[in-house]
Amino acid sequence: MRACVLHSAQDLRIEDRPEAPLGPHDVRLRVRAGGICGSDLHYFFHGRVGDFVIREPLVPGHEFAGEVAEVGAEVTRVAAGQRVCVNPGRNCGHCPRCREGRPNLCENVFFMGSASKFPHMQGGFAEYTTVRDIQCFPVSAELPFEEMAFAEPLSVALHAAHRAGNLMGSRVLVTGAGPIGQLVMLAARRGGAAHLAMTDMIDAPLDAARRMGADETFNVGQGTGELLEAAKASGGYDVVFEASGASAGLNAALLAVRAGGIVVQVGSLPGGETPVMANRVMAREIDLRGAFRFGDVFGDAVTCLEKRLIDIRPLLTGTYPIERASEAFAAAKDREHNLKVVIQF
Amino acid sequence: MRACVLHSAQDLRIEDRPEAPLGPHDVRLRVRAGGICGSDLHYFFHGRVGDFVIREPLVPGHEFAGEVAEVGAEVTRVAAGQRVCVNPGRNCGHCPRCREGRPNLCENVFFMGSASKFPHMQGGFAEYTTVRDIQCFPVSAELPFEEMAFAEPLSVALHAAHRAGNLMGSRVLVTGAGPIGQLVMLAARRGGAAHLAMTDMIDAPLDAARRMGADETFNVGQGTGELLEAAKASGGYDVVFEASGASAGLNAALLAVRAGGIVVQVGSLPGGETPVMANRVMAREIDLRGAFRFGDVFGDAVTCLEKRLIDIRPLLTGTYPIERASEAFAAAKDREHNLKVVIQF
Amino acid sequence: MRACVLHSAQDLRIEDRPEAPLGPHDVRLRVRAGGICGSDLHYFFHGRVGDFVIREPLVPGHEFAGEVAEVGAEVTRVAAGQRVCVNPGRNCGHCPRCREGRPNLCENVFFMGSASKFPHMQGGFAEYTTVRDIQCFPVSAELPFEEMAFAEPLSVALHAAHRAGNLMGSRVLVTGAGPIGQLVMLAARRGGAAHLAMTDMIDAPLDAARRMGADETFNVGQGTGELLEAAKASGGYDVVFEASGASAGLNAALLAVRAGGIVVQVGSLPGGETPVMANRVMAREIDLRGAFRFGDVFGDAVTCLEKRLIDIRPLLTGTYPIERASEAFAAAKDREHNLKVVIQF
Amino acid sequence: MRACVLHSAQDLRIEDRPEAPLGPHDVRLRVRAGGICGSDLHYFFHGRVGDFVIREPLVPGHEFAGEVAEVGAEVTRVAAGQRVCVNPGRNCGHCPRCREGRPNLCENVFFMGSASKFPHMQGGFAEYTTVRDIQCFPVSAELPFEEMAFAEPLSVALHAAHRAGNLMGSRVLVTGAGPIGQLVMLAARRGGAAHLAMTDMIDAPLDAARRMGADETFNVGQGTGELLEAAKASGGYDVVFEASGASAGLNAALLAVRAGGIVVQVGSLPGGETPVMANRVMAREIDLRGAFRFGDVFGDAVTCLEKRLIDIRPLLTGTYPIERASEAFAAAKDREHNLKVVIQF
Repeated sequence: MRACVLHSAQDLRIEDRPEAPLGPHDVRLRVRAGGICGSDLHYFFHGRVGDFVIREPLVPGHEFAGEVAEVGAEVTRVAAGQRVCVNPGRNCGHCPRCREGRPNLCENVFFMGSASKFPHMQGGFAEYTTVRDIQCFPVSAELPFEEMAFAEPLSVALHAAHRAGNLMGSRVLVTGAGPIGQLVMLAARRGGAAHLAMTDMIDAPLDAARRMGADETFNVGQGTGELLEAAKASGGYDVVFEASGASAGLNAALLAVRAGGIVVQVGSLPGGETPVMANRVMAREIDLRGAFRFGDVFGDAVTCLEKRLIDIRPLLTGTYPIERASEAFAAAKDREHNLKVVIQF
Repeated sequence: MRACVLHSAQDLRIEDRPEAPLGPHDVRLRVRAGGICGSDLHYFFHGRVGDFVIREPLVPGHEFAGEVAEVGAEVTRVAAGQRVCVNPGRNCGHCPRCREGRPNLCENVFFMGSASKFPHMQGGFAEYTTVRDIQCFPVSAELPFEEMAFAEPLSVALHAAHRAGNLMGSRVLVTGAGPIGQLVMLAARRGGAAHLAMTDMIDAPLDAARRMGADETFNVGQGTGELLEAAKASGGYDVVFEASGASAGLNAALLAVRAGGIVVQVGSLPGGETPVMANRVMAREIDLRGAFRFGDVFGDAVTCLEKRLIDIRPLLTGTYPIERASEAFAAAKDREHNLKVVIQF
Repeated sequence: MRACVLHSAQDLRIEDRPEAPLGPHDVRLRVRAGGICGSDLHYFFHGRVGDFVIREPLVPGHEFAGEVAEVGAEVTRVAAGQRVCVNPGRNCGHCPRCREGRPNLCENVFFMGSASKFPHMQGGFAEYTTVRDIQCFPVSAELPFEEMAFAEPLSVALHAAHRAGNLMGSRVLVTGAGPIGQLVMLAARRGGAAHLAMTDMIDAPLDAARRMGADETFNVGQGTGELLEAAKASGGYDVVFEASGASAGLNAALLAVRAGGIVVQVGSLPGGETPVMANRVMAREIDLRGAFRFGDVFGDAVTCLEKRLIDIRPLLTGTYPIERASEAFAAAKDREHNLKVVIQF
Repeated sequence: MRACVLHSAQDLRIEDRPEAPLGPHDVRLRVRAGGICGSDLHYFFHGRVGDFVIREPLVPGHEFAGEVAEVGAEVTRVAAGQRVCVNPGRNCGHCPRCREGRPNLCENVFFMGSASKFPHMQGGFAEYTTVRDIQCFPVSAELPFEEMAFAEPLSVALHAAHRAGNLMGSRVLVTGAGPIGQLVMLAARRGGAAHLAMTDMIDAPLDAARRMGADETFNVGQGTGELLEAAKASGGYDVVFEASGASAGLNAALLAVRAGGIVVQVGSLPGGETPVMANRVMAREIDLRGAFRFGDVFGDAVTCLEKRLIDIRPLLTGTYPIERASEAFAAAKDREHNLKVVIQF
């Protein structure tokens, strides 16, 4: 079977790979669509994501969906032929974090398409992949695979929204209008946000945000002056989701949030020390909360897609066949023209 | 009547001042004891606290207690002769933050002994001062005034503990063993902390912490290696209170807290941007929460003192008469020998 | 000016009444639409609501909207000619409950159209009424007054949803498909509920619920068997809103909710002791939470109406001019044909 | 080895029983002390607890401690000779309730000394018993076994306190001064309760409560008048723990709690419908929360005993050798003279 294999920065090859043997709780998946995520882009363009460096060939991809090809002897959750979204992570169930209901902080987590451990955890950008039964979430047949591939990034967005708590009636700002920022905005609306604002450095994704329901947008490429004036005039945002991954975004969040408000850090900031207006956390009694991957919301994300409680279709801006995978990665990086790019296998 | 009046950095004079007229809801207080706080020290030694600069003579002091000398026509809450702790702040009751039960974030707060507004809000380091009736909390006669003067800093500590939420059974670290750090540690024990750790750059306050119940202490003057090893061995602290006011303290907190844990920023960090390991907030899904002054806990602080639910006596390391006020300020700065210094009026 | 005046059970008269003088913070309102609530029906048909008995002529009505006719000398919040929704309650701002951000539990609350105090607090079913400025919430001109009159019952529903906490992804059941039950269902959807179920004793309001988005409905007129089977099959509802006001509804809720789930009691149960399966609260570790009137959500309710974040139009089933007010009350009681009935003034 | 075996109501025999084989993760325990719980008393005197009826010989007992006699091949957590407290329950780790961090609501829980399943789950009142390694919590040698046997009921009390949330500064009432009520009172103090009140029908346990720190006690044998007057005078209790297991206790709780307050139902009420003043839950916006067994607090309970953060010694009022087990059960029922009775094996 053919797989996308990343050997080092900008060296992605379509290779034949043997299929893994099928354990009793395993499911062999005919992958049909896989979305390209920011971390995939980092691996592709830089050969690393922060401290995680590609040390052996890596099949990237943790946003994917497909059909069940074959199931192990003990599997009852799904059957061959079913269309499923796949949760790329699975937790151990017995460490302290699992025991307190925070599986995303599991000390022994397995997460596909990541070089954070060695041997690397191979991902889903291949014609076939093998996952554990509990990672599979069946979906009614009508939903296209390209939409199904959004279950994972939507889970990230829903988790970020959960970290903010009850959003009903709140005024929300999202800094950074990439795919995660946009999904977070949609998740905040679904959670009852009364007002949605968004920032970015370029106009194209802000235009998309307005089409998807943003009440106001700010191009902060020339500075945050307009944003902070709006924040001041309204008394400040109740909740800010920082999805730009830049410390400038975090500082804008700390300036734009109201006293006693909440900032959720979803974006991945540079490692090590970053310049942060940390005293505002104290002086304005802000809650700054990290959001890492996602907890037990994957099933809900699938429900959102199935019932179109959240309509992600405007985010799907490009699809490419496996043969043009490298082209797909290049397109995914082009923020002027794309939000989410999906590869078909 | 005599008052301590700060004219500029290191220029504290004992002056005669006229007494203010008594409004219908006012209480004239015969001040008897006043504790010196970190912000008082900043005003005394530097003529400013962050952005707040002494622009006219300022009577410092917001930790004080005394006897009711006279009450306004409408006052029923207290009577002449009663011993009272005084809450130095009062909130407006109708701004959005007051309406949601967060009086410390009141947009129109009045806080004694502060140059944050002009004209300055005069403080309590004087033989007499005038406060509003609702600021007065009667105390049974047996408690010495010097202990009563702890109601305000204890409120700060209780508020910080409340910001962490339910502490029962948690492993707690406090970075910075000054008076607030020590009180936070005692408040955490009162809230049910199962394990108490503390750090400082010098040994004396750590010795005091151990006498007051710390399970372990770390002198981080030479680095945080030992602390972080202990944190790693135990799985990390559930809650860290940052009370050093240094960004190094905050970074130690972010390194020592467990994944999914809570860091409460109580100490006043430098204004503007500070180097912070902010990506850990996301990657470890930490809650970083500011704690600013205190909410509706002053009455509870008084109860803690009255019933000695929290015994603050080991913190009281020096008392000085008003004539030696400047000496008291110098002593309060000497962390080798003092925790809390109180002036008697 | 003409007003609806209730003298005793089923004795509603249209009478001329003098207008009240206008204080400096008062607003004279030209009332244009008023919705009939369950408590209005109790006053109309029985002359009482629980312990509150009509002891003097009472103008009913606490769900109303209109135009500002005249403002007092100090009023800046609204101006003559503006269209406003009116919050019928106002709280004192200084009792313990107000101080902790729960204005609906204010010990000194003033609530229009209620016989809970004597003299009674006169309501809004009149051509003109006088309210305090802070009770007025301006609305953009396009929204019909009949929709604006929903701001109050929608506030009740939003508050109930807030009492359940974050609803994103939850499976929700509402027992009782009256106007409040329907609005609670819509509020739960707005808060992110993934699945909505509803019960009633008759079919008509269940049909309406399905048209407004209910995923499943149960006619429990012949028993709760089908409901409880569905609950069992799905693992139980995460959250149940009890809006029937019958102890049978509460017991159904306690049986249908999952272990560790939440039941919000919105409906007014009979006073005194009621037979309740209370041991389930312990044995299944249920949270049973009361929801009384509403907290600080009136402005959000107005926003929901303005932006149609919640579309209440299917609930508006009848409008009557003031002359036919008694007829309007009779219609409002007819659950086969009506959900919400509005009187025009 | 000898075991206490309950054949039916009031038919407890000391019998020889074979020891169970030791699996790889099992620990054979030399039981040394076992506390008699209310459910043990129900089994002993009535042959049943609610719906759970003794259908085969049952070794009762779920509050016990002892020494490790032998460990299975894979056990690393404890070693032979160690003194351990034993958590009588273990959860599955993968059902929805386990996944959200609520192991006490596990759908597949195993709980020792209970007839809730058939075959019954045998308990710990025997010279030896076999448990899973994760149920064992080592304790430093100095603590007597009789104190160690309190880890389980203390866990129940700590869990109830956790269900109330942050107790710091709150005014707490406990209805019912049995062993659980007393432990809940001590847990509430540990969690920072500022004021502790307790009720019972008889004086002896109330006297004990005062010795252990209750600020006020009420004998409600002749009615709740005095209690409700005190509640009214103080504005009502912030939190009430219902530990009497009587619906009269629950109704007293609903009357004595303040508006917006919390009632935690710890006691086991009669099954089926009970007369409850349920409308107060709505009209006073009360949170009524069940507390069932305990979540992940057993380790904390052991820490509390080891460090004597909670001193349970005044509760230990009787110890009996295994030969006099029936006598021990009779003593445990005598509330005039006993709080907690422990059997030594």
